[in-house]
Amino acid sequence: MSADAKPVSWTLVNGEPAGSLPVSDRGLAYGDGLFETLRAVAGGLPLLQRHLKRLQRGCEALAIPFASAQIEAELRDAAVRLGEGVIKLTLTRGSGPRGYAAPSEPQPTRILSAAPAPVTDPARREGIALFACRTRLSEQPLLAGLKHLNRLDQVLARSEWQSPEFAEGLVCDQQGRPVECTMSNLLIWLDEGWVTPSLEHCGVRGVMRDYLLDTLTARGVPVVEQSIDMDMLFSAQEVCCCNSLIGVWPVIRLGEQRWSVGPQTRFLQTLAEQVYQ
Amino acid sequence: MSADAKPVSWTLVNGEPAGSLPVSDRGLAYGDGLFETLRAVAGGLPLLQRHLKRLQRGCEALAIPFASAQIEAELRDAAVRLGEGVIKLTLTRGSGPRGYAAPSEPQPTRILSAAPAPVTDPARREGIALFACRTRLSEQPLLAGLKHLNRLDQVLARSEWQSPEFAEGLVCDQQGRPVECTMSNLLIWLDEGWVTPSLEHCGVRGVMRDYLLDTLTARGVPVVEQSIDMDMLFSAQEVCCCNSLIGVWPVIRLGEQRWSVGPQTRFLQTLAEQVYQ
Repeated sequence: MSADAKPVSWTLVNGEPAGSLPVSDRGLAYGDGLFETLRAVAGGLPLLQRHLKRLQRGCEALAIPFASAQIEAELRDAAVRLGEGVIKLTLTRGSGPRGYAAPSEPQPTRILSAAPAPVTDPARREGIALFACRTRLSEQPLLAGLKHLNRLDQVLARSEWQSPEFAEGLVCDQQGRPVECTMSNLLIWLDEGWVTPSLEHCGVRGVMRDYLLDTLTARGVPVVEQSIDMDMLFSAQEVCCCNSLIGVWPVIRLGEQRWSVGPQTRFLQTLAEQVYQ
Repeated sequence: MSADAKPVSWTLVNGEPAGSLPVSDRGLAYGDGLFETLRAVAGGLPLLQRHLKRLQRGCEALAIPFASAQIEAELRDAAVRLGEGVIKLTLTRGSGPRGYAAPSEPQPTRILSAAPAPVTDPARREGIALFACRTRLSEQPLLAGLKHLNRLDQVLARSEWQSPEFAEGLVCDQQGRPVECTMSNLLIWLDEGWVTPSLEHCGVRGVMRDYLLDTLTARGVPVVEQSIDMDMLFSAQEVCCCNSLIGVWPVIRLGEQRWSVGPQTRFLQTLAEQVYQ
């Protein structure tokens, strides 16, 4: 290995190289934890503060101690070492005895995995088809918006299709209202502004979504968070999905419905790409 | 150690002694798995078939391969070795790459932990106080009844009280209807029969609950599963909770409400105790 060659992928558990964790970890037992998936570019993490903020919100909701400075330092170190790629950080409440009651002084587990960026078909930037998932999201206001480890809804929804024809799947709430996609948030351009489903009862509040909402607002582009229904989705002039790894993918098909890639979506793509330049 | 001394507690991962599992396990990443907690008595597992049946239902719902014979053999072996105690079996979809999509040929992970029975205050057999949890259960018909690893609802509910004054906590659905307790099922004697909340939208279908329902029905005691509300609970003449480890605990207090321990609950206790004789 030459002096400047970088390791391809690695994992740290509580800051030490390791590939395993104790079976008594509550992350395994109950999904008692949170995670973040960050894109590293040129040794940096452009959306780091938004990821940390969401992680902090999750820790507050679950009463998991949040060692903010330590986690930030480990993420920054990993990004420098990785250069370009994806860093996944999982934070659990740590080990505990059998039973739901949490230890009074939990020792959280940090799992940091760094890997090269996945190879994604560049054609997705020109538009994707959405699969219409039958799986509906659990309704739980106490957990809505958080990126916690209880992700069976997403596992079930994602298991509904195998064809590469569909890059993503649309997921609705228990009343059949569109909320998000399996791994990304949904935005629709309806008449004169962007609308994105509110995430009060279910769904993950993506950091790219938050960045786009803030940036659009700062630039005077109308954008609202509200409950939407299928009629609104089908009436939209433009539809797209976003997350911090993929950026923005225009949605051009859902069932029989077709959309073209419009100027508003192109502008969102530009905003997303500016993050990583 | 003398020839017939038994080890106090141990863990097997995929049949081999081990205390850890790979960080890539989907049980950790997404709570993508199931668990069962069985009581061993005199080297046997009296409710084994019911536990296996629930595990099989869970595997079918999540499309996790279920090596029934292997799991049954490992559980039976552990019970013989343990004698008296508790065996927890966790079954996950196994390891996978990042992302919700499951491997096309998953290699499930089996984690078997055996330990002595916890010491429980025998006074609980004479009645317990319930804490009224504010945490409401997620509504998800696709997962209702299953003992899966997405248990943040229970973690949040159980975190609401620390006082040993409360042995259990009552948990309601999103509409405020009583469903179960944090780790046990709820039964109420209302006028002329037992009523237990239906578990179509949320809740865990306990094996002791199923055993009691089947046994009551076989003996001609009226018992129905139906949605209940707080008024029905407060109108009940007897209230109790049950699971396969504790048996049946009479509920004698919830907030200002008091119940006495009646003959129907005593009969349920007898039925539960017969299981382990």
